[in-house]
Amino acid sequence: MNDIFVVFGVSGCGKSTIGKQLADHLGIAFYDADDFHPTENVEKMSRGIALDDNDRKGWLEVLSLSLAKWQKAGGAVLACSALKEKYRQKLSSRVRNPHWIFLKGSYELIENRLNERSGHYMGSRLLRSQFDDLEEPAYGLVIDIEKSPKQITEQIISRIKMDNKSVFGVYGLGVMGASLSLNIADKGYELSVFNRAEREEKEVVSDFLRENVRYSNLHGFTDLSDFVESIARPRQILLMIKAGKVVDIVMEQLLPLLSEGDVIIDGGNSHFIDTQRRSEYVGAHGIGFIGAGVSGGEEGARKGPSIMPGGNKEDYMKVAPVLEAIAARDASGNSCCSYVGPDGSGHFIKMVHNGIEYVEMQLLAELYALLRLEKSNEEIARIFEAWNEGGLSSYLLGITVKILKKKEGDHYLLDRVLDRAGNKGTGSWSSKVALDLGVPNGMMTEAVFARYISSFKERREYLASTLSETEVKRATLDVEILKNAYEFARLVNHQQGFQLMAQASSEFNWDLDFQSIARIWSNGCIIKSELMNELKAYFAKNDDLFMIQTIREALAKGEVSVVELLREGLNRRVSLPCFSSAYQFWIDSTTRNLPANLIQAQRDFFGAHTYQRTDDPEGESHHSNWN
Amino acid sequence: MNDIFVVFGVSGCGKSTIGKQLADHLGIAFYDADDFHPTENVEKMSRGIALDDNDRKGWLEVLSLSLAKWQKAGGAVLACSALKEKYRQKLSSRVRNPHWIFLKGSYELIENRLNERSGHYMGSRLLRSQFDDLEEPAYGLVIDIEKSPKQITEQIISRIKMDNKSVFGVYGLGVMGASLSLNIADKGYELSVFNRAEREEKEVVSDFLRENVRYSNLHGFTDLSDFVESIARPRQILLMIKAGKVVDIVMEQLLPLLSEGDVIIDGGNSHFIDTQRRSEYVGAHGIGFIGAGVSGGEEGARKGPSIMPGGNKEDYMKVAPVLEAIAARDASGNSCCSYVGPDGSGHFIKMVHNGIEYVEMQLLAELYALLRLEKSNEEIARIFEAWNEGGLSSYLLGITVKILKKKEGDHYLLDRVLDRAGNKGTGSWSSKVALDLGVPNGMMTEAVFARYISSFKERREYLASTLSETEVKRATLDVEILKNAYEFARLVNHQQGFQLMAQASSEFNWDLDFQSIARIWSNGCIIKSELMNELKAYFAKNDDLFMIQTIREALAKGEVSVVELLREGLNRRVSLPCFSSAYQFWIDSTTRNLPANLIQAQRDFFGAHTYQRTDDPEGESHHSNWN
Repeated sequence: MNDIFVVFGVSGCGKSTIGKQLADHLGIAFYDADDFHPTENVEKMSRGIALDDNDRKGWLEVLSLSLAKWQKAGGAVLACSALKEKYRQKLSSRVRNPHWIFLKGSYELIENRLNERSGHYMGSRLLRSQFDDLEEPAYGLVIDIEKSPKQITEQIISRIKMDNKSVFGVYGLGVMGASLSLNIADKGYELSVFNRAEREEKEVVSDFLRENVRYSNLHGFTDLSDFVESIARPRQILLMIKAGKVVDIVMEQLLPLLSEGDVIIDGGNSHFIDTQRRSEYVGAHGIGFIGAGVSGGEEGARKGPSIMPGGNKEDYMKVAPVLEAIAARDASGNSCCSYVGPDGSGHFIKMVHNGIEYVEMQLLAELYALLRLEKSNEEIARIFEAWNEGGLSSYLLGITVKILKKKEGDHYLLDRVLDRAGNKGTGSWSSKVALDLGVPNGMMTEAVFARYISSFKERREYLASTLSETEVKRATLDVEILKNAYEFARLVNHQQGFQLMAQASSEFNWDLDFQSIARIWSNGCIIKSELMNELKAYFAKNDDLFMIQTIREALAKGEVSVVELLREGLNRRVSLPCFSSAYQFWIDSTTRNLPANLIQAQRDFFGAHTYQRTDDPEGESHHSNWN
Repeated sequence: MNDIFVVFGVSGCGKSTIGKQLADHLGIAFYDADDFHPTENVEKMSRGIALDDNDRKGWLEVLSLSLAKWQKAGGAVLACSALKEKYRQKLSSRVRNPHWIFLKGSYELIENRLNERSGHYMGSRLLRSQFDDLEEPAYGLVIDIEKSPKQITEQIISRIKMDNKSVFGVYGLGVMGASLSLNIADKGYELSVFNRAEREEKEVVSDFLRENVRYSNLHGFTDLSDFVESIARPRQILLMIKAGKVVDIVMEQLLPLLSEGDVIIDGGNSHFIDTQRRSEYVGAHGIGFIGAGVSGGEEGARKGPSIMPGGNKEDYMKVAPVLEAIAARDASGNSCCSYVGPDGSGHFIKMVHNGIEYVEMQLLAELYALLRLEKSNEEIARIFEAWNEGGLSSYLLGITVKILKKKEGDHYLLDRVLDRAGNKGTGSWSSKVALDLGVPNGMMTEAVFARYISSFKERREYLASTLSETEVKRATLDVEILKNAYEFARLVNHQQGFQLMAQASSEFNWDLDFQSIARIWSNGCIIKSELMNELKAYFAKNDDLFMIQTIREALAKGEVSVVELLREGLNRRVSLPCFSSAYQFWIDSTTRNLPANLIQAQRDFFGAHTYQRTDDPEGESHHSNWN
């Protein structure tokens, strides 16, 4: 059975041009539906009179019969307005699985194009009626016509399901896998999805297809070999499975089924060291491997996540159209998916993303700990809300406002949430890598430890009960100080995160582009914020934020407020580990002489580890008998 | 050639009893030299007249001839006073490699024993002249006679070089290996030492033997097979080599040369995970594996380190006599080497030891950073010296006093040491394990990060130069506050360290004995201190120090001082990461309601991670729509 393509849309959308190019590329015949109009229809249109459904009846019948003939004869591309659903139903009545390609553009864009165009028998005054008639389909490929005809044609070719095969495959229909699949299907790609049908997962695929029956471009599989066979080569297969050993097991199952040049994308939270290993292993089999961090939770995955792909650049180019299409958009409308760097770099920066997220959450928790001593949840929410409307706006601050306001009956729901913060282990990865790479990373580590200590709930309660109540000195908190300290600590947090990436970049020869990273984190992900947008600009100047004078001035100014905040913590017996750590990092980073000379002297005393001298800082190692 | 043993010492030292038991054990003949005196000598002695060298001449000649005869006949044990070197030379003149076993005791001890003894022909009044004559040998086995005859005999058996073979082997003559070898040789063991003779290590063994020629019980090898062959079975071989892959390589070389039941001891700073793996691997070959942490630096290794052996108990029992003999002694005179637990537990606690050490050093550095703003090194030394004479005494505080006082010409040497503190990577292990095990461990981690940040010296100097000088509010520091805060922080440090071990003990089923660990850390190691001695007693009550009321009271009292100290740090722009972390840990540990409810609500908001409820703390997980 040969392929039939119907390129459709209002007059002026470019369907003839695109249709011809597509037919040329595919080596099949091209037809323009306008050429099949009876003479009376052509005359009517040239007089500026819109056709009615009666006028179209015979014309559609002829086209329907022709399409059936062309399908038998070797396939064809038909350019046809096909504005209404019932026209399209008529057109597809005699062919099997036609590809619908809708060229979509705004009224203004098309009007401009029509005005610039000459020699066409339909004037732009008919355009309004065409837009009135247009019923946008829920199926098929929707193509934005803003780009050049060549780009549009390439886009179509990259997405159409050739030889009855899918463009893309998703392995694993968990929450994230299912959401990403619908996101991909929304973009019009023919998509194969796979989930194993074992035990409690027996009905996963069939349930998913049933719940999303409106997507005719979704194809479900429970047999791995069928799944792989259903995808056009070079295959693009996104694994959305639990990070860890399972990824290796699934890769072993996939490898014998794949062909050279196919690309596996690991979209889970894999450790970058595993990704480095897998890249190499899979590469030796001629298969590409992209380790892609995906942030945004279920909602992000469905509507547009931030995607951080790492691997070989050529492998990435194969999967870029789909990944970049489904990602969120930045403030300039560009995709929040962009090539990060070689091997494990994508998963590395996703790991750092999560570390920054841990700190952002802990900073808000520490502010809340102080504020709740004297303010209601509603009052705290209003303070945060005001901040969120200014330069401090962020996704996490936004949801915190909602959380503080949320009620359950007469009570604030937050007050009923147990103070035991969980973690999935991955939060500690950044800290461990920082420890390995020799990069100070106190804030992330303190944020992780703060969650750990929260888990010892019974012990805390017992110990609290053994202490006599301490008297708390309470002057009312100055909210402006809190705000300044929060700004200060967030800057330091981002600096620590980017400093960690800088060290990794140099260690692993990744050549990371921090401006690009800040950009793809500016939307779609959990740590998206106004600050991230600002950092995007700063990284044009310097990879090290502390080297930028405006940043330094902001920090020097904020220092006063952090000191005040820490004093308030001490006054109130409230522990502020992340604010303290931010302060210490700033102080230590800007202190000419640290007391580390004593430590080095101690090391030399008991272990003969030697020391350098202030009068010869880059010079030889010295050892003294200190006794 | 059969073995000849001469058990010697003053009258009353027990040489006949011990000699008989030894002969029985070895299945060879026993002779008492007294039985070979001519009648005139016996009469002289019974009249209380001391023998002179002329009296002894014929007697020694007879013994010398007899020893030669006995060596041919199957070996023998001779009990003989042999007080002077020239008598011993005479005795050994006709035999090859006799074993000299000196039973050593104080005058008082032996006098008491003689007074209690009856039926012996020599009265205690001769004892003084015997002690006058005694020339202690620099060779042979020196055995303390305080223990019971049975214990003494066992000790001898464990140490004698049977069939011309060594009791123990040391692989690797680096600083630590050489020091431990001399320590073992000092205890009289026949010892084989090995070092490869490659490149710059060509002369290591020969140099070592030449420098220590007075030890006739040291036997050097550069051929691995000869080295292994030189050790009596079951062999005990201590590896003193760089931790890492080298250990695996050396083990692979050793395995084919070893026999079932032999025991390898890894005395390096290996990671406990490697030790777990190696235990299992070597065990499968029928070879025992002991991972032994060794602390004390070069001096400790030479004079008595703290040793932390982990592995199978039966394997440990084989190596216990040597390891326990060479370790430091605790306040009660017991060895600071004691079985820790299975597989990697010995190296684990050594790792935690080093973590505690990092913090103890950093705390002193932070105090120094504050104090040096207003006091001279000499004044600071005097403050620390006073502390070190009280309950705060510790090895690290002691060396800090010396370091502060050390002068180079007119200048304090410390002032010339560059403030860039190094680390060997192992300092970060405790932090990483704590992150893995879910145990808060802020102090160790901050101490590691403080060293890291010190290494960015040029960057710090540059950044410092860009800031305007901040005005420092200086009231004179209250030294009492510093002292109390230091006590507080040290308690928290030890709690964090022991809490980490407690978690590991339960995770890996090690059944660690914290009282025993505190005991073996009470001497010989870098973190030995008066506090460690006190903890020994506390751990009899509870493994969790915070559960002990006196500890809690001390911390609650200290809290006030730490708060003051942290304020002084804020006033002076001095970063105090370890003191801050100690404070935060104490506060968080004793806070009924942490702000972690907000974090858990955020997690539930964006990731549907669910939460528990305050009205049902051990109950089900809940999820809410927070929008």
